[in-house]
Amino acid sequence: MTAEALSIDRVESAARIERDIETLAGPDYTRSEEAIRRYAYTPEYRNTLDYFIGELDSLGFEHYEDPVGTLVARNRPKGEQAFGVGSHCDSNRNGGKYDGTMGVVTALEVCRLNKEMDLDLPLQLVSFLEEEGSGFGQMLLGSRIIARQVTEEDLRETFRAVDDGRSFWEHAEGAGYEPGRWQDSLSILDDLVGWIELHIEQARVLQDTGNRIGVIGAIAGYVHADVTVYGRGDHAGATPMDLRQDAGIVMAECMLELERLAKEAGGGTVGTVGEIELRPNLINAVPGQAKFSLDVRGVDEDGFRGVARDIATFAKEAAGRRGMRTEYAQRQTLSATPLDEVVVAALEEAAEASGEPYMAMHSGAAHDTMSIADRVPSAMVFVPCKDGISHSPEEDADPADAALGAEVMLNAIRKFISDRSQDGSSAPG
Amino acid sequence: MTAEALSIDRVESAARIERDIETLAGPDYTRSEEAIRRYAYTPEYRNTLDYFIGELDSLGFEHYEDPVGTLVARNRPKGEQAFGVGSHCDSNRNGGKYDGTMGVVTALEVCRLNKEMDLDLPLQLVSFLEEEGSGFGQMLLGSRIIARQVTEEDLRETFRAVDDGRSFWEHAEGAGYEPGRWQDSLSILDDLVGWIELHIEQARVLQDTGNRIGVIGAIAGYVHADVTVYGRGDHAGATPMDLRQDAGIVMAECMLELERLAKEAGGGTVGTVGEIELRPNLINAVPGQAKFSLDVRGVDEDGFRGVARDIATFAKEAAGRRGMRTEYAQRQTLSATPLDEVVVAALEEAAEASGEPYMAMHSGAAHDTMSIADRVPSAMVFVPCKDGISHSPEEDADPADAALGAEVMLNAIRKFISDRSQDGSSAPG
Repeated sequence: MTAEALSIDRVESAARIERDIETLAGPDYTRSEEAIRRYAYTPEYRNTLDYFIGELDSLGFEHYEDPVGTLVARNRPKGEQAFGVGSHCDSNRNGGKYDGTMGVVTALEVCRLNKEMDLDLPLQLVSFLEEEGSGFGQMLLGSRIIARQVTEEDLRETFRAVDDGRSFWEHAEGAGYEPGRWQDSLSILDDLVGWIELHIEQARVLQDTGNRIGVIGAIAGYVHADVTVYGRGDHAGATPMDLRQDAGIVMAECMLELERLAKEAGGGTVGTVGEIELRPNLINAVPGQAKFSLDVRGVDEDGFRGVARDIATFAKEAAGRRGMRTEYAQRQTLSATPLDEVVVAALEEAAEASGEPYMAMHSGAAHDTMSIADRVPSAMVFVPCKDGISHSPEEDADPADAALGAEVMLNAIRKFISDRSQDGSSAPG
Repeated sequence: MTAEALSIDRVESAARIERDIETLAGPDYTRSEEAIRRYAYTPEYRNTLDYFIGELDSLGFEHYEDPVGTLVARNRPKGEQAFGVGSHCDSNRNGGKYDGTMGVVTALEVCRLNKEMDLDLPLQLVSFLEEEGSGFGQMLLGSRIIARQVTEEDLRETFRAVDDGRSFWEHAEGAGYEPGRWQDSLSILDDLVGWIELHIEQARVLQDTGNRIGVIGAIAGYVHADVTVYGRGDHAGATPMDLRQDAGIVMAECMLELERLAKEAGGGTVGTVGEIELRPNLINAVPGQAKFSLDVRGVDEDGFRGVARDIATFAKEAAGRRGMRTEYAQRQTLSATPLDEVVVAALEEAAEASGEPYMAMHSGAAHDTMSIADRVPSAMVFVPCKDGISHSPEEDADPADAALGAEVMLNAIRKFISDRSQDGSSAPG
């Protein structure tokens, strides 16, 4: 394969990607002058879909939107197999130009290259709806609808617009969609033999290690929880050290223990205390209560779940040693998503062939690919973003890295399709 | 002295103290129905002074208010020496019945006992203005005015009413006082040969050690400061443990080190992190910044200042080890106040003679006595308050302990005056 790998005109591709990105950062495509702010069923979101449709039209792609508004475009008729590429083009409310959008733009570039280079690869581009949750406070909403990980009750009643409190259902109908047919969205995946999503990394591993491409082997699962330590609020001046039940001290012990446990677990498991609330939170009061969040993630299911379990136990014991008690409350948990070894191997081979520095890694953040990876052999490609800054107008990434990503994706898809037809197999996985 | 110690009718005294306390918890004496809320220049505060004036009148005390409203009452003409007793009768905004008021009430009880028992001790009762700062946000204001620890600019301009923003000066004039003569307040101390203030402990040392009386040998000084750790805010899922600059972890190390340093310093030095602010304070973000308060107190000046210095150094080094930096900003500092050995010894002897459990201790909280102790030989008496709860409507204390306090004060004052006249000395200290 390495010998067969195609080289694209990366400068030309980077220029097109940059043009797309900059166009979509213009005033017609964002509801804020200070940031990118676009979400489902707004004129700015509609304009963004229309921009992609125009570009895909000119490549001869058929396109449709699913019953709630996910955009699908194909260069093969429905019913014929194709390889999926794409991401999401909504943003968070104070977002940057690259998160999600760079993935759809790069998928579009793969479609362009496929035509320009006469490769005739069967491709299906998908732009998922509401990955960021800016419209209805629900992350990965479009891909979870496709995967039927929501209920009709959720869509009709529970999920409500951040802006006006009206239901998702009402908004979807208002935008001309047919949410009553939401279960049909699953058919988007019917003809997909594989899937690759490119995304900015949203962290600094690629930058700090000098790599331009990350090939993602798994998406981390997580445990989100809160620990509350119940101590005793006393006068900070009048209460001797040995008569205190300082809830803050137990919290501090837990913070250090979580760091130790995550490092000990290894394999990319991470643990963070990001949110803290002391009561009464006064300089002259011994904290009577300390509540802190736990964010424990990893791709090794036993690893990260073990850390979450161990820190809960540790908190209880540490509080007990000082005559206090704790409460542990889980907010949310999600299993790790292993990605497809064959697609990952094809990406690694293509990355190797590019001659540019790349690395195998996992994704600590959640992505739409999680919703579909158990039905379609999937993988992801990361490109660096400056200083790891994301979800901010400061977000910055290099179109040249995305162009390299397009080349890597193109070669991986070629290899995957070619191996598949040689095997004579139908959709693997 | 022990042989000579007088016994009072503690049951009778407790009943009178309870009656005073409960009267002053009535609707005429508080601006809130849910708590005690009274402060300078309000009708409720005026009623409270008038209650004490009525009781003192009936004991034959002369009384006046200083140029800003501190109440002074004496059973000797001005110019003759007397022993001072008292506290403050303002409350914090959501206060209890005992903080301050119990001290003035017990001082009143000492005056009553002096008359009933024909002791003819020369006494001066003082009820300080605005100890809690509820009126103008300035703690110990009345006693600091007496001690000239404020400026005229402060009183005319800087100190403004919490309620309406008008100046202290304006409010004092409105209430019929002459703030222009504020420097004359110092004369309150002219004829005092000694001073004892009784106060509820506001902590749980007496309760937890089973003592009914605390004889205070010193009032703690303190350092109030903030440490800010500057790390890097990263995605909690996507940032490996070894690439983080987690400001929260440095904070946690400092919290535990502060506890260790305070315990190591001993001698009653205490250290507290009571106030914490993380940024961005989100469950899924590595804290990029952590700001935490330091409250370090003690009666050993070198001891508590050493702990404050050491924790600042530790924070800097702990941050440095992880590639971060810190800022240390002092909010306020006050030296410890040693109290008078002769008055303290007289109180200890009287407490011993009472046959009730007592202990020598220091005050971790600030009191008006701090403002006058360098001019008048001073000491304090603490009585237990339930579970250490103070500055709350839940505040609870036992009038029987205050009655015991009155007996101890009375005997200490007798002893002090008697020793003094035998020495033929004038005001000591």
